[in-house]
Amino acid sequence: MQPFAITPVNTLLLPDIRHKIDHKTKPVGALGQLEMIASRICLIQQQLSLELHNPHILVFAADHGIAREGVSKYPAEVTYQMVLNFLNGGAAINVFCRQNGITLKVIDAGVNGTFPSHELLIQQKIAKGTRNFAQEPAMTPDECLLAIKLGASVTQKVFQQGCNVIGFGEMGIGNTSSASALMHLFTKLPLTDCVGKGTGLDDAQKQHKLDVLQESINKYAPVTDPLTVLATFGGLEIAQMCGAMLQAAENKMILLIDGFIATATLLTAAQFYPAIVDYCLFCHQSSEKGHQAMLDYLHMQPILNLGLRLGEGTGCALAYPIIQASVHFMNDMASFETAQVSQA
Amino acid sequence: MQPFAITPVNTLLLPDIRHKIDHKTKPVGALGQLEMIASRICLIQQQLSLELHNPHILVFAADHGIAREGVSKYPAEVTYQMVLNFLNGGAAINVFCRQNGITLKVIDAGVNGTFPSHELLIQQKIAKGTRNFAQEPAMTPDECLLAIKLGASVTQKVFQQGCNVIGFGEMGIGNTSSASALMHLFTKLPLTDCVGKGTGLDDAQKQHKLDVLQESINKYAPVTDPLTVLATFGGLEIAQMCGAMLQAAENKMILLIDGFIATATLLTAAQFYPAIVDYCLFCHQSSEKGHQAMLDYLHMQPILNLGLRLGEGTGCALAYPIIQASVHFMNDMASFETAQVSQA
Repeated sequence: MQPFAITPVNTLLLPDIRHKIDHKTKPVGALGQLEMIASRICLIQQQLSLELHNPHILVFAADHGIAREGVSKYPAEVTYQMVLNFLNGGAAINVFCRQNGITLKVIDAGVNGTFPSHELLIQQKIAKGTRNFAQEPAMTPDECLLAIKLGASVTQKVFQQGCNVIGFGEMGIGNTSSASALMHLFTKLPLTDCVGKGTGLDDAQKQHKLDVLQESINKYAPVTDPLTVLATFGGLEIAQMCGAMLQAAENKMILLIDGFIATATLLTAAQFYPAIVDYCLFCHQSSEKGHQAMLDYLHMQPILNLGLRLGEGTGCALAYPIIQASVHFMNDMASFETAQVSQA
Repeated sequence: MQPFAITPVNTLLLPDIRHKIDHKTKPVGALGQLEMIASRICLIQQQLSLELHNPHILVFAADHGIAREGVSKYPAEVTYQMVLNFLNGGAAINVFCRQNGITLKVIDAGVNGTFPSHELLIQQKIAKGTRNFAQEPAMTPDECLLAIKLGASVTQKVFQQGCNVIGFGEMGIGNTSSASALMHLFTKLPLTDCVGKGTGLDDAQKQHKLDVLQESINKYAPVTDPLTVLATFGGLEIAQMCGAMLQAAENKMILLIDGFIATATLLTAAQFYPAIVDYCLFCHQSSEKGHQAMLDYLHMQPILNLGLRLGEGTGCALAYPIIQASVHFMNDMASFETAQVSQA
């Protein structure tokens, strides 16, 4: 895989950060998680006055061969239809990005269908979906490496346009199955703890999904090399997103991580470069089973917990105003000294 | 007390609301709590296309005689100093209101100090703080009734300027003691479950606060009439906020309820008119002990849980973009039919 220059953040600033936060006109700790977010951004940006520029959300879309095993409640053509919905501005992620001043880009990483040119769309389809990993690996190693490279190139373009805060979302019928397999193989948690109801499976359908995944994993076992795991069980949108995340961390951007699939992708990226986690804010705890355990595994606390299970980057878009508020209090709120307020 | 015309919302629209939400391009239920917020606003506004106009947050400020018993970590003059900080735009609530396009008004309901005229300030001081309820009732019944009336008049002015969504915050050193007493007397939960660390008391200081409150409550027991409870243990900012909330529900506005003290105030208002709860969105679960139990008592789920314990209406200001997102998805997101997306 192409190398990425990803280093842990330098924590020497921490005492200065704490001093600035604790002298704002509020009881110590009274802004709770906003203080943690501000502190994390200080470390990423290595400064005490923070900047958010040209926020973007990238939604990676692709189809999945595993969908042919009946692991999703929706037919596979919904991937294509929903990408058209994104381009027409009608999906939840469009609505939330418009509200919060976030630029949306949709990346066709491997959707089974052909799209017209569109200003929101970046066409870099590698194939019309992955192969069915119940039968053969989802991607060849070369396809997987190409996906990482193409994903990284999207971040690089956006970075060159002055973006320093970037969210990651996805669309792909069947992709909770890929994410569950990645989670299981990287965290070593029991598969049953990694498999949820996706877009709304009932208990019997969920059991079927679990059986398909268990058989598939047994078929290739043992697979431990991260790139082989990603190629075997991943998706083209997951592999491109993985590359995009790695490039964002190399660029010292703020990474906004959405729900179950985006977090499984970050977990994959962290197998290659563990320091990537230093650059991440985890935006929303999905109600998809397994997401809480994945966040616990990463020792990360999500910003929102609104019971969403939609993907598309919606958690990133909804959390963005909270991230702005964290930056604004750090930059603009008065201190006890300047406001002449008595301390405890 | 002056009468308020507060009626429960009419729920006949519920099937139409559910139909509209479930036909948006997302799995059923996938927008989680945003769907519940949208549904609640539909019931308040009795329509399926929602409107948010001229949002306001009212911050009521007053001093408390009980502060002389050493129940707060901060000296009483901080109430006055923080109001000046609000007027100068330096507090957390200023920062968050500016970010989210919310108009802030600060109401001097009874601060121990004199303020210059200021465009943000509404001066309707009833006294320079309450009396110390460890010794005598905080307010006379007449003062309490006047406070409710003056609070209602603020909402009425804002309503006449086209506001239909209104948040409530407060500032008053010592006011968690009042709120704990109100909570205990209205919910009948043990006092120890209703008393927290306020702005940062240690365990011994918290025990002292608990002892002061228990002795005070014993002194007047039994007190059950809501108006007498409010006059005896409340604050001038709490009583004015109570009136402002009642007027907002009469006007069928959306009420945004902040943390521990604002929720205790809403709980007080609900003793007079239980239907007021239909008009409320609970914005943030404070890390102040007792708030979770109060929300459970009201069967309400907060929108955010960011570990804040600041008051000032900060939870309302931070939750507002989530409320906007709930309105926007309801109004602007495509349906399966219009977007030609296949259903499950």
